[in-house]
Amino acid sequence: MTTIVAHAAFEAGGPLRPLSYTPAPLGPHAVEIEISHCGLCHSDIHLIDDSWNRSAYPLVPGHEVVGTIAAKGASVAHLHEGDRVGMGWQRSACLECDLCRRGQENLCALQEATCIRHHGGLAGRIRADSRFVFPIPDGLPSAAAAPLLCGGVTVYAPLRRHGVDATKSVGVIGIGGLGHIALRMLRAFGCEVTAFSSSADKRDEALAMGADHFASSTDPRQIRQHLGRLDLLLSTVHARLDWTTYLQVLRPNGVLCLLGLPPGILQIPASVLVTGQRAIVGSDIGGRSVIAEMLRFAARHRITPEVQTLPMSEVNTAIDRLRRNQVRYRIVLEA
Amino acid sequence: MTTIVAHAAFEAGGPLRPLSYTPAPLGPHAVEIEISHCGLCHSDIHLIDDSWNRSAYPLVPGHEVVGTIAAKGASVAHLHEGDRVGMGWQRSACLECDLCRRGQENLCALQEATCIRHHGGLAGRIRADSRFVFPIPDGLPSAAAAPLLCGGVTVYAPLRRHGVDATKSVGVIGIGGLGHIALRMLRAFGCEVTAFSSSADKRDEALAMGADHFASSTDPRQIRQHLGRLDLLLSTVHARLDWTTYLQVLRPNGVLCLLGLPPGILQIPASVLVTGQRAIVGSDIGGRSVIAEMLRFAARHRITPEVQTLPMSEVNTAIDRLRRNQVRYRIVLEA
Repeated sequence: MTTIVAHAAFEAGGPLRPLSYTPAPLGPHAVEIEISHCGLCHSDIHLIDDSWNRSAYPLVPGHEVVGTIAAKGASVAHLHEGDRVGMGWQRSACLECDLCRRGQENLCALQEATCIRHHGGLAGRIRADSRFVFPIPDGLPSAAAAPLLCGGVTVYAPLRRHGVDATKSVGVIGIGGLGHIALRMLRAFGCEVTAFSSSADKRDEALAMGADHFASSTDPRQIRQHLGRLDLLLSTVHARLDWTTYLQVLRPNGVLCLLGLPPGILQIPASVLVTGQRAIVGSDIGGRSVIAEMLRFAARHRITPEVQTLPMSEVNTAIDRLRRNQVRYRIVLEA
Repeated sequence: MTTIVAHAAFEAGGPLRPLSYTPAPLGPHAVEIEISHCGLCHSDIHLIDDSWNRSAYPLVPGHEVVGTIAAKGASVAHLHEGDRVGMGWQRSACLECDLCRRGQENLCALQEATCIRHHGGLAGRIRADSRFVFPIPDGLPSAAAAPLLCGGVTVYAPLRRHGVDATKSVGVIGIGGLGHIALRMLRAFGCEVTAFSSSADKRDEALAMGADHFASSTDPRQIRQHLGRLDLLLSTVHARLDWTTYLQVLRPNGVLCLLGLPPGILQIPASVLVTGQRAIVGSDIGGRSVIAEMLRFAARHRITPEVQTLPMSEVNTAIDRLRRNQVRYRIVLEA
């Protein structure tokens, strides 16, 4: 009988400690992945802390998983033992509803998350539904591919949904784990890119990563220099912002897209939306086709996140660094 | 020298009294319209009352104008004396910016309104830029065409922008001057239509006008019966609503579109936007091509607003009825 050794939180906010568990039998559509890398994402902290009231313990975090196929079920035809693959936030969906059939499995009412009531990727192995496991293109190093599987698709999906191309002017609020990937993707799309960050010391890095302009998000005058300029503005931050000013940074028909979950309630003057026909919209990871497309896009354009690596055994150190906001820009644990 | 006799407010909130004025000379692109009908819209009340702080007095309201061409400037080729025409909220735009060139003159930074610092259509005649004057298709009675020129395009433009067709489920909040036109248009598009109204006594009328479902907007239980059902929800009301519940009435990827200007600040939980990728967006009248298309659509599908008519001389009575919310559903003044 297989045993999987994982790193688990046993209570809300607690440190990770070893957990051995027996996985479910390998069903016809399942694969077993021998994990080489697993990214650590702010969502993992929310899960460990149960800040969304959705966690079940023991909880094995880790939903940016890269490894090789070690075993597969009888119905798995598109993956083979030894293939280098990855999986992200979502582990399954019904695959039969209208949304699934349209490639929007991320909106399926029956979707399941990799780390909620299932054990995630901070482990030696994981068993997963092969239909939510993606081949990693050759050009992508495994440590760089891991954060793309959640953070990468989170920023890529709204770029595709909102028609980003080389004629567009796009802003990114927050130049962190998500935002820095956005800058690199937007440069590949050929956009005019404006970075908004509370860390003035990120200016040079942001410009090197693809930003044409940089504004301090704590200085309203700097933000207001961009009034009426942007077609799309991605917010990657979990903070209360002056949404009125950010909406005014949009052109007519412009879209403010929330990727993070700002705490509490947004305060939006209706007049700012109606005058100029501006929109505020949310975006939540992406479906299977957009994940696969994003991986090919990243490989072709050599888009890799900035990654710090640590051995999987030092996972609590990694969590501590992420909690202290000391990660520039993603942290990945290696087997 | 031509003199135009009009009905004007001479102070904020004041009654309309006669005003005679000499119009600007008839420029090369101008036409003079002999007015047969002029609709009265809630926006006129806002202008009379200066509730948007944009009014200049004496103020001649009236921006749903129908009449015949009485004279035209030398460069006007597409309209001829005697043509039945209409004009709406917007009287001009630069016609040279990117937005104008894309047919989105309603978003031009240099746009001018018919009744702001210009004299509107509660008058015997009006001089207007022929490029913002539209032929009225033969099938449309003039009294019915008048409210289409502002109210009609205000509901029609977002239906086109958000891809409404016979596969969509669409809701309308507020079954009044705008909302009842929306029901009839949505029926013509073949949508499944849900009406939300605070007036339970409008149920039968709403169902007759095209609604498949009716919910009292003052009963949260009735609203919540439609959770997760709508692709698009138009809000036509100027009231504070429970936006969280209305956003939850949307399907994943659904859009809440504000046509009116709700007073104050919207309170929107970010989680409702991100989970399900929902959007809240504003819409503001429509460009010239969508106005012309809307008039042809209304003629072809025999979509006419419910109109009460009064002689132009009784304009203060009409304003009083509109203020008291006694109009079902639009009021039009006749020469």
